[in-house]
Amino acid sequence: MEVRKIEELIRFSDEKMQKLPVFESSKYFCDLYCLKSGQDQRIHRHPESDKIYFVLRGSGLFHIAGEEEQLVAGEAVLAKPGEDHGVKNSAAEDLVLLVFMVPRP
Amino acid sequence: MEVRKIEELIRFSDEKMQKLPVFESSKYFCDLYCLKSGQDQRIHRHPESDKIYFVLRGSGLFHIAGEEEQLVAGEAVLAKPGEDHGVKNSAAEDLVLLVFMVPRP
Repeated sequence: MEVRKIEELIRFSDEKMQKLPVFESSKYFCDLYCLKSGQDQRIHRHPESDKIYFVLRGSGLFHIAGEEEQLVAGEAVLAKPGEDHGVKNSAAEDLVLLVFMVPRP
Repeated sequence: MEVRKIEELIRFSDEKMQKLPVFESSKYFCDLYCLKSGQDQRIHRHPESDKIYFVLRGSGLFHIAGEEEQLVAGEAVLAKPGEDHGVKNSAAEDLVLLVFMVPRP
């Protein structure tokens, strides 16, 4: 059975945000994003893909389609195809996100 | 911004497992499954879809492709296309799952 213990996958780097695959598929990404304080995923967009961020730990400043909002553990947000999106760990503690992107670009 | 506070979406019923949409799309399901003790999602399969279960709260007995395993909060499991899958809340406490299914059948 393809079981993943999420805590065991979490990795941080002083260099940059870590993106760690949870499950592999040609149809979607299911990843963990691990951001130390101050790290970010710069604003970008995917013309055809939805991206769902679910905050597992910490809090992050999300930018979606020109809006900004601080989200905490237990909150989720959707970036639709073509929408600018990014996230910054502007808090002191670590930030861990469960991220789904469909379809895989 | 399409933000969802997962705690506010959780609903249980004495009748059966509750399936609550988190985000709506024609391409995938992103749902919460809320199971009281003893409730289940019976074993079934989807010929073309992957289903990912992520345990948010409680623990559940998962059946995937003939194997059974008890998973707890912070664990995730994948059922691939054509694989039998189901879950039962065999514990005393409530079970809450974040579920992604791609593509939407």
